[in-house]
Amino acid sequence: MSPPLYPIPNSTVIPELRLQKHPEGGYFAETDRQSETVPSPFVGGAPRSLATTIYYLLTPDEKNGVFHMNKSATMHVLHQGRAEYVLITPPATPGSPPKLEKKVMGPNLQAGEVLQLLVPSGIWKMSRLLPDDLSAAADPEKRDRVGCLITEVVFPGFAWEDHAFLTRTELEKLYGGSGESKEWAAYVKNG
Amino acid sequence: MSPPLYPIPNSTVIPELRLQKHPEGGYFAETDRQSETVPSPFVGGAPRSLATTIYYLLTPDEKNGVFHMNKSATMHVLHQGRAEYVLITPPATPGSPPKLEKKVMGPNLQAGEVLQLLVPSGIWKMSRLLPDDLSAAADPEKRDRVGCLITEVVFPGFAWEDHAFLTRTELEKLYGGSGESKEWAAYVKNG
Repeated sequence: MSPPLYPIPNSTVIPELRLQKHPEGGYFAETDRQSETVPSPFVGGAPRSLATTIYYLLTPDEKNGVFHMNKSATMHVLHQGRAEYVLITPPATPGSPPKLEKKVMGPNLQAGEVLQLLVPSGIWKMSRLLPDDLSAAADPEKRDRVGCLITEVVFPGFAWEDHAFLTRTELEKLYGGSGESKEWAAYVKNG
Repeated sequence: MSPPLYPIPNSTVIPELRLQKHPEGGYFAETDRQSETVPSPFVGGAPRSLATTIYYLLTPDEKNGVFHMNKSATMHVLHQGRAEYVLITPPATPGSPPKLEKKVMGPNLQAGEVLQLLVPSGIWKMSRLLPDDLSAAADPEKRDRVGCLITEVVFPGFAWEDHAFLTRTELEKLYGGSGESKEWAAYVKNG
C-alpha cells in the first residue's frame, strides 16, 4: 500500500519548499516579495513592498516560535496540520491588563479550529504545536507527519525594522508583575 | 471507524465557511477587507483597501471558474484538494501570441504541484478540477471529498472596477483567429 499523500511528511516539505530555520523558531522560506511599493499606513507612510509571502512550518523538533510583533498585518493560511496561536494585545491604556487570545489553526472546523487567521498590526504573536499532536509524534512512524505548515501573507510587505521580539522585561511590564507573565516566559526569545 | 478528517467534505466546508456561489463559478466568501487604504500601483495610485482575502472552492457541481483578470496581484494558497490553473498573459506587442501557462495547485510536491500560486497584475486566469478527480467523484462515497479549497489574498484589495471577465471577442483577438482560442471558449463567461 502506498503511503497517504496527506499530510505531506516534514522530510518532504522542508527540502521541496527549501525551508530554513527561522530565528523565531520553526522553518520558513520567503516565496514572494512584490517589487511595487506603497506607503505603509502602519509606519507613518514609509515605503514598503506591497506584500510579501512566506511558508512557515512547525515540526516536533521545532515545535514553537517565540513572541514577536509586526507593524504590518499578516494573514495566516493553513496548508496542513495544527497549531495553537497565542496573541497578546497590549492595552490601550498603560497599566490595564493586556488582551489574551488563543486560536487553533486546524482542519476541524466543527470544533472551532480555523483555516485562516488575521493578525492585525501591533499584536504579540506566538505559535506552538499542541500537546496531543506532540504525544502522537512520540511514535516514530507518525512523527514525520506531525506539524503545522502555513502560508503567511504580510501587507505591506515584511521589513525587519517593523518587527520586534518580545523581551522578558517587556513581558513583565505587560502583565504589571502580576505573575501571569510566568506562563509565557518560555516563549520569549533567549528567555 | 470515524471518517477521515482530511479532506474536509464540501458539505461541511460550504456551511462552516459560509460560502456562496461566485459569479465566476465555484463558491466563495470574503473573510477580510483591510480598512486601511493605499494608492494602488496598478491603477495609477487610485485608493484601494490594503488587501482583501477570500476563500474559493471548486466542487464536482461547480467544477471550474471562467477567465477573468484583476489589476491587483493575487496570492493563491491551497488548503486541500487539487485544481489546474490556466493563465494567459496578453502579449506586450499586439499581434504576438499570448503566453499560456498551466499550473496544478495540489499536495503532490514531488510531481510539480504547488501549494502557492502568485498571479500578477493583468493576467487572464481560470481554474478547473482535473479529469482524474472528476472521475473519482462519480463514486457517491467519494464525491463530497473531491474539490479544491484555496485562500486568495489580493493586494491591493479587490475592487470590481479592477476586475474584468474575458469575452469571446477578446479571446479571439488574443489568438488572432488562429483557432487556438477554441479550446478556451468553454471557459468564457456566457461563452
